[in-house]
Amino acid sequence: MKKSSKKLSSDDHRSGCPISCVLDLVGDKWTLLIVRDLLFFEKSQYKDFADSNEKIPTNILADRLKRLEAAKIVTKRPYQNNPVRYQYSLTPKGKALFPVLKELVRWANKYIPGTIRPDPEFLEKIKRRAATGS
Amino acid sequence: MKKSSKKLSSDDHRSGCPISCVLDLVGDKWTLLIVRDLLFFEKSQYKDFADSNEKIPTNILADRLKRLEAAKIVTKRPYQNNPVRYQYSLTPKGKALFPVLKELVRWANKYIPGTIRPDPEFLEKIKRRAATGS
Repeated sequence: MKKSSKKLSSDDHRSGCPISCVLDLVGDKWTLLIVRDLLFFEKSQYKDFADSNEKIPTNILADRLKRLEAAKIVTKRPYQNNPVRYQYSLTPKGKALFPVLKELVRWANKYIPGTIRPDPEFLEKIKRRAATGS
Repeated sequence: MKKSSKKLSSDDHRSGCPISCVLDLVGDKWTLLIVRDLLFFEKSQYKDFADSNEKIPTNILADRLKRLEAAKIVTKRPYQNNPVRYQYSLTPKGKALFPVLKELVRWANKYIPGTIRPDPEFLEKIKRRAATGS
């Protein structure tokens, strides 16, 4: 996983296609679930992400957090020393992924039976949270 | 890759979260590029997908086409025998991924320098193509 914490440069992109470039960053089964946890559920700590229903393996979680930080989608700051523990939050760039997540939810609710349907008011609240930077 | 051509059932889902369920289907670096090729560039044949700038490895292409077919996002029909060759097209479920792709494009254009900016008229044309089922 040498690529994980490397800074992004144009060399990392497979093409100039915007879709391809986003998938270079978040194209896997896990990364957008961490963004979801941060934005929808206001999770911020490593153990909270690890506790989510999908049970992300901890080595993948650590790798994805590093990649999200390298891509400036997430920032971290220590909230405890000995041992140091970090609190993660979305940058404006990370929060701007909200419309992508919303469209994924809409598509799933229409085409994948049994998926949880979020309350429209809940989604509106998240949209405001994403927009205001709070 | 035993999972590739298996039919989807609730057992395949990591949780009832709609975002997680979509990522179970298209959460990787390649699958949405095939959807892009079908919808944006009207590609339909195996060799056309393989020719795209991102240079998808052919074993991955074959696997992803099988998965997309199993998920009813794509259908195929033979256009030649000896050897048999297939033509692929998006189902309405597949075309309905357009808003997801559009939001990925918007995000990339805003946050990833150097990504190609599609002409708004081109995106409108794709939107109509996705909506009309043509």
